[in-house]
Amino acid sequence: MEETNLNQTIRCIVKLGGAAITCKNELEKINEENLETVSSQLRQAMNLGSCSNKVIGMDWSKRDGVSDISSTLADIDDQCQFTVDFSRFVVVHGAGSFGHFQASKSGVHKGGLIQPLVKAGFVATRISVTTLNLEIVRALAREGIPSIGMSPHSCGWSTSERNVASADFSGVSKAIDSGFIPVLHGDAVFDDSLGCTILSGDVIIRHLAEHLRPEYVVFLTDVSGVYDRPPTDPNAVLLREIAVGEDGKWSVVKPTPQSMNKQVEIIVAAHDTTGGMVTKISEAALIAKLGIDVYIVKAATSHSLKALRGELRHNIPDDWLGTVIRFSR
Amino acid sequence: MEETNLNQTIRCIVKLGGAAITCKNELEKINEENLETVSSQLRQAMNLGSCSNKVIGMDWSKRDGVSDISSTLADIDDQCQFTVDFSRFVVVHGAGSFGHFQASKSGVHKGGLIQPLVKAGFVATRISVTTLNLEIVRALAREGIPSIGMSPHSCGWSTSERNVASADFSGVSKAIDSGFIPVLHGDAVFDDSLGCTILSGDVIIRHLAEHLRPEYVVFLTDVSGVYDRPPTDPNAVLLREIAVGEDGKWSVVKPTPQSMNKQVEIIVAAHDTTGGMVTKISEAALIAKLGIDVYIVKAATSHSLKALRGELRHNIPDDWLGTVIRFSR
Repeated sequence: MEETNLNQTIRCIVKLGGAAITCKNELEKINEENLETVSSQLRQAMNLGSCSNKVIGMDWSKRDGVSDISSTLADIDDQCQFTVDFSRFVVVHGAGSFGHFQASKSGVHKGGLIQPLVKAGFVATRISVTTLNLEIVRALAREGIPSIGMSPHSCGWSTSERNVASADFSGVSKAIDSGFIPVLHGDAVFDDSLGCTILSGDVIIRHLAEHLRPEYVVFLTDVSGVYDRPPTDPNAVLLREIAVGEDGKWSVVKPTPQSMNKQVEIIVAAHDTTGGMVTKISEAALIAKLGIDVYIVKAATSHSLKALRGELRHNIPDDWLGTVIRFSR
Repeated sequence: MEETNLNQTIRCIVKLGGAAITCKNELEKINEENLETVSSQLRQAMNLGSCSNKVIGMDWSKRDGVSDISSTLADIDDQCQFTVDFSRFVVVHGAGSFGHFQASKSGVHKGGLIQPLVKAGFVATRISVTTLNLEIVRALAREGIPSIGMSPHSCGWSTSERNVASADFSGVSKAIDSGFIPVLHGDAVFDDSLGCTILSGDVIIRHLAEHLRPEYVVFLTDVSGVYDRPPTDPNAVLLREIAVGEDGKWSVVKPTPQSMNKQVEIIVAAHDTTGGMVTKISEAALIAKLGIDVYIVKAATSHSLKALRGELRHNIPDDWLGTVIRFSR
């Protein structure tokens, strides 16, 4: 792994969950309303020190369904007097309804690039996830966030037996130090032993957190946090605080264990066959172990805004909905 | 500069000229017909050794104006028996009507990232050129070419006083060795001294040629080659062969100098204020000096197909229209 030389620490790494920003059950459909709200909240969170509410749109490209770009451009010449300084964030997004179909149809996650179907699926998966990446970069840019798409596979991320073997921290650091917001994503990557596999956004987040040591990490999801059983179950209980010990094991602190089903861990694991929530909690626990607070919260809510702004770092209000994962010595 | 460890030499680096694949005078409009023909010719050129004409589509994403993707997908399961081996090519494309507006509006090429307008323009330019890159990757993938978009800025290309200071050859080599076709493009990049600038596709081609040493290089343009004056001038003469000496200077070999205006070099330089053709010839001369033949030819013609297939390497037919630039000891 290469050395990282950041000029300053970064404030926050944010995961935009695939389920929160896309329409899960419709192929390659973005949840435009959520994405717009998430982008706006990110701008507010990054812009904390600024008194200006003026948004300097940075997407000057044509858009489907928008007649022309002249309205975006009319303001450009007036914008020079505004500063565009943002606090140091990194954004990583999942795939949601992009990439999933292509990957599962071809078995990219299982490797075997020598097979034509896998090779074609590798190309098709990357087309789909980079399409989503571009749309997210554009949505952030429209909010005036100076975002830079960085596609992990093409930036040199690769794995060995599904574990990250090489990563690009210097490109991310350089972009941050130059005042930009890198936007990475879950991607199909080369694997030294398997040929190829899928590198999830959650794993990327954990590696970035280890190397960039942000002040806090936020996972934006489509549910309010981590529950003791499927959130669709009317008896599901939101786990408000999880403590991670030196040994990496985690335990529920709030609600108090006495009031809870003792089999929380097993139930959480069982309701998630895709590995989504389990991976998320495992990766979050590894991040928390570094002493970095992790917030898992529903995207595009007042709760997510609080988490993104870093308001929960010293005090978590009783009416805040979400899961905090914290290191506990 | 890093070391390059290619398993085998690559056959060809191709430049898809911005003017050849986009509609010059219409903002962000692709010349679909040309792009489709170019993609098909590239497949034919890369597929030389194969007896199969079956195209295995690798773009499984939704497309505007195409009702659904089921037709693309119907064949996927049947495709497993076909090999998808392609000879080793690298594709680099220009920007054409993508990126140019955003770059010139903001002055990204002049640097000064501290200015909000330049910073916004950097983001806007990259959105525009990566949009084009994605469309080209998709067009190639539809032809069954296993293409991988590699955006120079995010892959670590940067400049110092507009000269390439760092480049990503290992990512390109790794993709080629794994059986993929990397697709790079002219891009907005960081510059050590200026903050940022524009790195042209032609300069990228030359650097790739120096490090990857392809057998030949093809520039696909919107005119038949290099002329002695603007091609719109009815008296313009196509320069069929240009020789480059050890000193890097070039001279017209064909048509013979006796039959030509003596001021060719000056006239060529004068008719091109944007630096487009002059840059192209300078970069092509530097490539030729390495002993690598360069063909400048009109895209989507029978002549471009001959060039792409490498048919001109030993003998150039009298009826071939284009410009050959060659090293001459």
